Amino acid sequence: MRHEIYDVVILGGGPAGLSAAINATIRNKKVVVVEQEPSMTSLKKAPKIDNYLGLPGSSGQDMLASFNEHARSMDVEIVARRVEAIGEFDGYYNILLGENMIQSLSLIIATGVPYKATLPREDDYVGKGLGYCATCDGPIYRGKDILIVAHGPEAEYEANFMAEICRQVYYLPLYKNIGELDERVELLPRTRPQAVMGKDMVEGLELANGQAIQVEGIFILGAETAPDRLVPGLLIEDNHIKVNRQMETNLPGVYAAGDCTGAPYQVAKAVGEGLVAGLAASKYSSRKK
Amino acid sequence: MRHEIYDVVILGGGPAGLSAAINATIRNKKVVVVEQEPSMTSLKKAPKIDNYLGLPGSSGQDMLASFNEHARSMDVEIVARRVEAIGEFDGYYNILLGENMIQSLSLIIATGVPYKATLPREDDYVGKGLGYCATCDGPIYRGKDILIVAHGPEAEYEANFMAEICRQVYYLPLYKNIGELDERVELLPRTRPQAVMGKDMVEGLELANGQAIQVEGIFILGAETAPDRLVPGLLIEDNHIKVNRQMETNLPGVYAAGDCTGAPYQVAKAVGEGLVAGLAASKYSSRKK
Repeated sequence: MRHEIYDVVILGGGPAGLSAAINATIRNKKVVVVEQEPSMTSLKKAPKIDNYLGLPGSSGQDMLASFNEHARSMDVEIVARRVEAIGEFDGYYNILLGENMIQSLSLIIATGVPYKATLPREDDYVGKGLGYCATCDGPIYRGKDILIVAHGPEAEYEANFMAEICRQVYYLPLYKNIGELDERVELLPRTRPQAVMGKDMVEGLELANGQAIQVEGIFILGAETAPDRLVPGLLIEDNHIKVNRQMETNLPGVYAAGDCTGAPYQVAKAVGEGLVAGLAASKYSSRKK
Repeated sequence: MRHEIYDVVILGGGPAGLSAAINATIRNKKVVVVEQEPSMTSLKKAPKIDNYLGLPGSSGQDMLASFNEHARSMDVEIVARRVEAIGEFDGYYNILLGENMIQSLSLIIATGVPYKATLPREDDYVGKGLGYCATCDGPIYRGKDILIVAHGPEAEYEANFMAEICRQVYYLPLYKNIGELDERVELLPRTRPQAVMGKDMVEGLELANGQAIQVEGIFILGAETAPDRLVPGLLIEDNHIKVNRQMETNLPGVYAAGDCTGAPYQVAKAVGEGLVAGLAASKYSSRKK
């Protein structure tokens, strides 16, 4: 999947994303599902789901397996990659997946339950020293001190990259079993981040163990990324992506489906919205060609 | 089901109606699904449906069977009755099913693809001599001449009833194999109805065979009834029931789901909307108690 141009790129491989994928595939579109690892934990843990019509009494795990099997039987391309950033240029969405860039005429956001902030008042500091993509914003912090709040081991790679360009990189792991960190990275003890320091701009981070680390930049990595941070300009209402009954967001060619559009957080709603979004995105990409 | 009070009455036993039913049942609501016979013909005829996630490659018939099996496994009450009329009084919806009246705190309309008019300019004559429920409007036509356009044999019972109170009842069958008609009913040859006669009020009906029958009343019976004729005041937009993302119509306690709310006419959309409507109606009826 290098530099390919897709008709429909779907973020999220849960019920909404897979339903969108099979419907866009049936419409003969070039489709890829980008699955983010930490999602769908509540569905995976459900012992028995009785309210998805036609599949009574399945466990969440079995249901997801049968959904994936359905998609694979239709040769839907599914990749497990982290979406780093998305930008729009000249009618195409450019999607940065790790180090690969792909392009798409349309996007479907099906990233599941809304993002919960890692830090108090996190929103207030976004773009003022707080970010979610070290690879993207790294150069701004050349020669400066930064701190990485890491939700998972995938943040280690970015920490090591930042160690090459920053003066000091602090690494606060929120997970066990730390892997390979560059010797220039200062590993902090595993504790909760407490509060961002700084009136307007980030000046540091207080930790639950009482430490206060002075830095100019904080990166929160490995958490699910809020969709409006991923897709600039995306309209959020009551913590959910605002959509109409055609699953259109406020951005042309960008659709959303499933839990990220609001309650009820249920499989049948996600599958139904995925279908509507998949067909709408297919129609949109046909028109754009 | 005599004079019972329900929490949720669901009109339509297709994917949307059954999905609503299982979800309201899980919420411990007293639910009944009223299935109208002529519906869902396109789903029943589908040889293979590939885009309902988790059940790939089912025929429409098999899919409907598994949906019904799911509902029956949860003891959902399903009755095959024609809804004659619905009225609201004192916070309850009164639903006339044949000769039975049931009451409900909430309604879910899941009656499938929108009604197509039987006659040209049919809308213009509704309430001006043209109606859909002989049992309801019959007394107005006592001692007068009427004509019944009958889509199916269930109209025969009403024709015989009208024969008792009207001066002359003409019966235009649009189906084969006429059953038992009262001898006072004049059976017309099977032909298409052409046009309503009369400037403001109904004065008669022209038939495709050239006949012109003078009557003061025309009843169209056995066709699917347009939802806004069934539920007075229901808002229709572009030939579909207008709903918001919570599947609320413009009337309190009245929800809609599935094909009747608009395209795409697909199983997954119907099932998803049925879930949302079923949960919303459950919440509404809990609040009303």
